[in-house]
Amino acid sequence: MREKAREHMENILAKLREFGLTIYDQLARGEFPRIKIPSRTTSNIIYDPDLRQFVLGDQVVTRSAANIRQVRSFTQLIWVAFFAYKSMLANQPTTLRDLYYNAEAFDIKFKNQQESNDVVADLETILGVPREDFMIFPEERSAVFGDLTIEYTSPDPDYYGKRINLSSHPDGLMIGPSLLTADFVECNADKVIAIETGGLFTRFIAEKVHKKFNAILVHTAGQAPRATRRFLRRLNEELGLPVYILTDADVWGMHIAMVIISGSANAAHLTELTTPDAKWLGVWATDIVRYKLPTDAMTEEDLNRLRLLMRDPRYQDPFWMREINEFLKIKRKAEQQSFSRYGLSYIVKKYLPDKLREVSGR
Amino acid sequence: MREKAREHMENILAKLREFGLTIYDQLARGEFPRIKIPSRTTSNIIYDPDLRQFVLGDQVVTRSAANIRQVRSFTQLIWVAFFAYKSMLANQPTTLRDLYYNAEAFDIKFKNQQESNDVVADLETILGVPREDFMIFPEERSAVFGDLTIEYTSPDPDYYGKRINLSSHPDGLMIGPSLLTADFVECNADKVIAIETGGLFTRFIAEKVHKKFNAILVHTAGQAPRATRRFLRRLNEELGLPVYILTDADVWGMHIAMVIISGSANAAHLTELTTPDAKWLGVWATDIVRYKLPTDAMTEEDLNRLRLLMRDPRYQDPFWMREINEFLKIKRKAEQQSFSRYGLSYIVKKYLPDKLREVSGR
Repeated sequence: MREKAREHMENILAKLREFGLTIYDQLARGEFPRIKIPSRTTSNIIYDPDLRQFVLGDQVVTRSAANIRQVRSFTQLIWVAFFAYKSMLANQPTTLRDLYYNAEAFDIKFKNQQESNDVVADLETILGVPREDFMIFPEERSAVFGDLTIEYTSPDPDYYGKRINLSSHPDGLMIGPSLLTADFVECNADKVIAIETGGLFTRFIAEKVHKKFNAILVHTAGQAPRATRRFLRRLNEELGLPVYILTDADVWGMHIAMVIISGSANAAHLTELTTPDAKWLGVWATDIVRYKLPTDAMTEEDLNRLRLLMRDPRYQDPFWMREINEFLKIKRKAEQQSFSRYGLSYIVKKYLPDKLREVSGR
Repeated sequence: MREKAREHMENILAKLREFGLTIYDQLARGEFPRIKIPSRTTSNIIYDPDLRQFVLGDQVVTRSAANIRQVRSFTQLIWVAFFAYKSMLANQPTTLRDLYYNAEAFDIKFKNQQESNDVVADLETILGVPREDFMIFPEERSAVFGDLTIEYTSPDPDYYGKRINLSSHPDGLMIGPSLLTADFVECNADKVIAIETGGLFTRFIAEKVHKKFNAILVHTAGQAPRATRRFLRRLNEELGLPVYILTDADVWGMHIAMVIISGSANAAHLTELTTPDAKWLGVWATDIVRYKLPTDAMTEEDLNRLRLLMRDPRYQDPFWMREINEFLKIKRKAEQQSFSRYGLSYIVKKYLPDKLREVSGR
């Protein structure tokens, strides 16, 4: 199993070396080096109904060291590739912010962090590799709990080859670099339930949802960080586990589910962050009505956001349209925890089995 | 060891029963029941320089079932005590939000969640017990990593009596109900370093800060949740470990440290959430100058907040005043990760040992 993770890493190092060599070769031939990058401007971001996510179209931009206006961004890009290569070799996890500050040590100038973030996205686009593979991780952390044994593959000798079961600690284990690069050794669960709020994640563990429903529980902590989306995809792809997403019944909760399923326009240049077969389990707008949940009024911002999503290509499907229309009709929203109105265990004893039956059949 | 946790829980259950009996006795004597509660209004919150935290003064309010205007809040309070007792017996972790919604199932009315939160604070005040002991936990989650072996004491048979070392998973373990009630069995660390950002927490683990500095690492995830503050206090009190706090060099980072050290005015009725001997390790305003860190300009909001804290009793100490004045002088702020300007390892190799030497001597 460990071979696979090693191979994956070798692969990416090889891509980075190859990228460096194309520059080097051009220089050796006495040419100004140039790079072609698929454009990430809005007009080149198109929705692919087969992949069920945003992808980049055919527009390409060129960065050339011969063009005085491009030499700055060209240099930045080469340095970012160097930074990525170095971090991978040193097995040193970093963040976008570390990269931004570290550039100063090399006299590479970025106007602000948005500029360095954009250059990292350029490198992702060129190589088709998400930055987490370059050891550049998001700040945000989320957690997992369930009967899955993993084996660490990162080169740290204190952990390399060691195993842990993800139900070892009943408050949950953090999803970070070590988990993301670990191999999945043995799994006794047959599904994944991703949960928006920490309170419900904790209660599900206490109420043994992982046993009763044979599930791995993932806490998304609001909008799922990229590392968490990637982990969900791996659970789905490598272990064949269906992924169900449980959020608040509002436009933001609905979109947490959508981003796990279909990704974001910002990540149109990457395919490894989505789980197209994941399902939004609830809480749906129609659940608010069906289960007579306690609600709050939607704000003007909520309603505007709903109207915006009506025109979003990811939502052009009878199921999603029905839910958006229902939200717009009732103009109310409800929280996951509002099921406590019927007793604290109601969501586990009644709602969850009802919805799993309904959604897994769709 | 497990006896201690059991005793603690029995103690709180006894306090709740005793509270119920005083009501019951009054009813049995044919009286309208009444309760005296120390007042939590601003005028009754005073700073205690010996305890180094806010405490409540002598003002007391009375809730009486005989008073038509108090009968509502009186009933709410009795129900909240019932909810707490039930949650403890069932070992069922909940949140303030669960409690708010669950009230409806009992026909107990709350105007909004602020009202139910206030009644929970009433119960904390009366019994002198933080709500986490009633299994009411915050939504927010943070994490820990280090060479400390714990033993679970919560009555869940899957975990009761089991042990885990907190360095078992190199991405960190979540701080939740199970960790908070666990016994500390064996600790090989001699200090605690609490870190504001997730990126640095992850990097410290990768760079073996826990080994090089013999430290338990805690990720506060911004402002430390109450459960995390309580965990830090336990590490300090039960294991005698000094606690060092590393934050961004700005007014918000400084205050993250202060709330761990001296608590907040909101929690003036509780003493178990503070670690008065914890030290702010940095990044100080004076560190910005000394280490020539890359900075951003302070906003008007930052500056106003600094001026407010100048008059805050918790900051009336030459060290804190020096740092506030320095911030006001330079009008700049810096992030923890800005040390990456000198290379990614600089903060571990240079800044951390420098500051630990300096601060532990104070």
